[in-house]
Amino acid sequence: MLLEAIYHRPKMNWSYVYDRSTMHLRLRSKRGDLDAVIAIIGDKYAWDRTVLHLPMRIFARDALFDYWEVEAQPPYRRLRYGFQLIEGEESVWMTERGFEQALPDHPLEFFDFPFMNPVDIFEPPAWVKDAVFYQIFPERFANGDPSISPKNAEPWGGKPTPFNFFGGDLQGVLDHLDHLSALGINAIYFCPVFQATTNHKYNTADYMRVDPHFGTNEKLKELVDACHERGIRVVLDAVFNHSGREFLPFADVLEKGAASRYADWFHVREWPARIEDGIPTYETFAFEPLMPKLNTEHPEVKEYLLEVARYWIQDMGIDGWRLDVANEVDHQFWREFRQTVKTLNPDAYLLGEIWHDSIMWLQGDQFDAVMNYPFTNSVMDYAVLGKLDGLGFANEIGKLLAAYSQPVTEAAFNLLGSHDTPRLLTLCEGDVRKMKLAVMLLLTYPGAPCIYYGDEVGLDGGYDPGCRKCMEWDEQKQNKDLLDFFTQAIALRKQHAALRGADITMIYAEAGDPCIAIGRKDQETGEQFVLVLNASEEPRSMELPLHQGTWRNVFTATSKETQQNKLKLDLEGYGFSLLQLNVKSHVKA
Amino acid sequence: MLLEAIYHRPKMNWSYVYDRSTMHLRLRSKRGDLDAVIAIIGDKYAWDRTVLHLPMRIFARDALFDYWEVEAQPPYRRLRYGFQLIEGEESVWMTERGFEQALPDHPLEFFDFPFMNPVDIFEPPAWVKDAVFYQIFPERFANGDPSISPKNAEPWGGKPTPFNFFGGDLQGVLDHLDHLSALGINAIYFCPVFQATTNHKYNTADYMRVDPHFGTNEKLKELVDACHERGIRVVLDAVFNHSGREFLPFADVLEKGAASRYADWFHVREWPARIEDGIPTYETFAFEPLMPKLNTEHPEVKEYLLEVARYWIQDMGIDGWRLDVANEVDHQFWREFRQTVKTLNPDAYLLGEIWHDSIMWLQGDQFDAVMNYPFTNSVMDYAVLGKLDGLGFANEIGKLLAAYSQPVTEAAFNLLGSHDTPRLLTLCEGDVRKMKLAVMLLLTYPGAPCIYYGDEVGLDGGYDPGCRKCMEWDEQKQNKDLLDFFTQAIALRKQHAALRGADITMIYAEAGDPCIAIGRKDQETGEQFVLVLNASEEPRSMELPLHQGTWRNVFTATSKETQQNKLKLDLEGYGFSLLQLNVKSHVKA
Repeated sequence: MLLEAIYHRPKMNWSYVYDRSTMHLRLRSKRGDLDAVIAIIGDKYAWDRTVLHLPMRIFARDALFDYWEVEAQPPYRRLRYGFQLIEGEESVWMTERGFEQALPDHPLEFFDFPFMNPVDIFEPPAWVKDAVFYQIFPERFANGDPSISPKNAEPWGGKPTPFNFFGGDLQGVLDHLDHLSALGINAIYFCPVFQATTNHKYNTADYMRVDPHFGTNEKLKELVDACHERGIRVVLDAVFNHSGREFLPFADVLEKGAASRYADWFHVREWPARIEDGIPTYETFAFEPLMPKLNTEHPEVKEYLLEVARYWIQDMGIDGWRLDVANEVDHQFWREFRQTVKTLNPDAYLLGEIWHDSIMWLQGDQFDAVMNYPFTNSVMDYAVLGKLDGLGFANEIGKLLAAYSQPVTEAAFNLLGSHDTPRLLTLCEGDVRKMKLAVMLLLTYPGAPCIYYGDEVGLDGGYDPGCRKCMEWDEQKQNKDLLDFFTQAIALRKQHAALRGADITMIYAEAGDPCIAIGRKDQETGEQFVLVLNASEEPRSMELPLHQGTWRNVFTATSKETQQNKLKLDLEGYGFSLLQLNVKSHVKA
Repeated sequence: MLLEAIYHRPKMNWSYVYDRSTMHLRLRSKRGDLDAVIAIIGDKYAWDRTVLHLPMRIFARDALFDYWEVEAQPPYRRLRYGFQLIEGEESVWMTERGFEQALPDHPLEFFDFPFMNPVDIFEPPAWVKDAVFYQIFPERFANGDPSISPKNAEPWGGKPTPFNFFGGDLQGVLDHLDHLSALGINAIYFCPVFQATTNHKYNTADYMRVDPHFGTNEKLKELVDACHERGIRVVLDAVFNHSGREFLPFADVLEKGAASRYADWFHVREWPARIEDGIPTYETFAFEPLMPKLNTEHPEVKEYLLEVARYWIQDMGIDGWRLDVANEVDHQFWREFRQTVKTLNPDAYLLGEIWHDSIMWLQGDQFDAVMNYPFTNSVMDYAVLGKLDGLGFANEIGKLLAAYSQPVTEAAFNLLGSHDTPRLLTLCEGDVRKMKLAVMLLLTYPGAPCIYYGDEVGLDGGYDPGCRKCMEWDEQKQNKDLLDFFTQAIALRKQHAALRGADITMIYAEAGDPCIAIGRKDQETGEQFVLVLNASEEPRSMELPLHQGTWRNVFTATSKETQQNKLKLDLEGYGFSLLQLNVKSHVKA
């Protein structure tokens, strides 16, 4: 038994409240090392009459580790617990004090989850589990009102540069809501819409005003209302880490220096605020002089930004905030931000832009989710770039599932690209087959998938500015096959709880093999699916160990019967099958 | 290289801000497995011109692991980092994505500490590092005003029971401040002083009023002022997890049931609030009907308790709060509590009663410290109960040092007993030699030591009520030798920064050997000490590898010279030596 590999520490992703009556306990061990793990749980003040021994199950694996999990229902909302680790005839007990050769008779030495206080529970909005997002970069989605376009706006469909304009606006979005509804979208994430000089508007000049080239605040309200009528939620992008150069308080600082009444709103290291050897003497986003970092610890700054948060949530009725460069802003600010927003709308979705490990922002006091780029990377490396085989991909997914609590997985914001990455189709070098593999992985994964505008009609493009092309509205130029595929895959996801829920298992994933089979189940409906992918040019015949019964390929509507709990199937190069177990074959769990 | 043993996850105790310009990075590996670890650090937006390769050092070890640490000074308050793990000729690189066989050329894959925001830094009050606490159980310390004693108060010095009274009060403490000053105490932790029916007063009836048997609010103010004049800080005990049965809102709930305007101040599962089969139908501390759990999520309850916090801090001038059953109260309450208290007095000490792993309360947003019972257990198991040999003790201490950030260690509240444990002398079965070993470990350990009232004069007693005897004021009955020893040891601690600071190393600790040698240093003063203990009845001769020079036994005032960097010394059974390197031998670091 490799004790050095075994890990558990209370709270975080290791012991957490799943819902108001349920806890999850988890433990890590060396992959393949243990035969069984038993969680020994009880109430600390009534141990003898509450103690239970619960077998744990492996819910995820990665290259090095097995991750064990079990549910518990503490009768008095308190949980003391230890673990029995079993390998063959050998048992070792793990408590907070370490490893022991016998079950300690005093549970005081066990781990402690002191009390399941409701206010501390990580509880993202329930609607997110069923959401399919669509990300809109407003300047490039549709020009619905040429009268408000920038004077230097270029004709729609031209080559995007870091600085040019095409006149996309909110009326353009209003005009094309049918496209989103037809696609099956029920949530939009808008890149910034507030007044700013750039085409991306990440350098806010006025947080309380829609950019006049996009429309008015009233137009935004009209758009939000129109979305709500269609069952589409609206999430806006808030850039609270830094403002733009034209933000009045910063303009005042530039003008009046240390004498400005806004001097403390920013982090000026040396007055006057200026650039020395290419480095601003004030903190910025990266070293970008146009983006001065806001002092989010300053009471006036907090009051201002929280009023911004309030206004758009309460007066304009938006359904959440995507928070730019969220990890460079202090935790304390986000806690107050969450309090402010959730008090006004408990169903608001708070989505932080964090590309790295985000566990400390996902404890219930700050965000509901982060941009799940680790998922993006894994899908790309497997389905698109050929860097990972099936086992490698399964290991990455296992690590990701284990790194966060289940509620985090269920509300994750999963994406295959954004305004900050090359387009999926471009990474696929135009190969739509690879793109479909990636999209299938996205649309059958737990959490909320997000489609970057235009991916569904075959838009391509490299890194910024390439990935910010104008949306293609000429149906002749849209990739109809791709659009149908997206539409069908989204519809399947919305139709089947099993394709959205957290129950995901790797049925087949082997080293050196580019094929993979992923099982998806839903306890309540009894639905069972298998997604089989072939991330290689070679066609492939496979035999998968599956539940006895008839499995229906939901894209081709053909069915196959298992033989002795095995299903034979053929995959083309970069082909996939999404198979559903025939309803009659279901055995309700 | 055992990859399964290697652990790092950003934040927590693994990467944290030490002070406003310094970060600490840590990594865990299998004990003895790696020859070196290099931290590769840089600014994420200016990698090439900021990248540094910093060798890490092993700062702690336990039974299974080495813990590596390094300091970094990020020029722009942002840190991206990875690790090079070296074993012989072999190197493996660790990034957020896992282990790699070559240094990744793209630091995006590295770990990220996004920004060192000051408000998020764990910053306990500076005075705590130099504090020596004394815990007073007020009913049993001194009866200074018999006129306010309970009518049924028994003569001072009688046998304590769970229910009897002896008339201890605040005037009694005022009368004996000279004793504390002579002992060298500079902080008092008072068990509850607010109005309550019991002798321990953990069942508060009125949070805004000193118990009339203890005195008045004015008397407390007089005591606080008198303490402050002597340079003694005062910390009170706040019982916010639950109230007493007589707390007016709960009395109202008992009287009016669900119709009470305080119905939601508690957690009543079933009305009327009552006892069914020995279990209250309302949440309590444990299953104690007299201690109904407060609903600390309720705005009115919060407002009330935060006003309590404010009143005693601001109007009465106390220096901090010890928080009873702190881990069963919601985190959100403690965050607001911290904001409230620290706004009024940034130097207030917030000390949670948590016996278990407390990392999630020690991130900077909640407590400054917890009751360090894991330290207590380790000292007892080694010096008193003979359950641990020197190596076992060193491993426990190593684990503890690694489990928390250095600032947490520096502000820890270390104790050898309290009103909730048997007395130290009783655990020592009256053997003062063992007691002195434990006290030496306490008084030379980083953090704030706390002496439980009466330990210094030889009070004994088992678990509650035994450990709550009346203080012995008859000098004839006080253990004078013990009192002198405490006084001398406290004075040494206060005199020498090396005995208080965080620099602690295990110079000698071997399996099967009850002896241990612990090194203590201070960078600034250049002081070096070694504490050598023999936790066995057998006298012992030792030869220790020490810095060349003359070492002075600070208790016996005898000196010895090293021979070829080795010092010979003799220890009696359960004996100890505290040795200081002669100032002339110092080489300033």
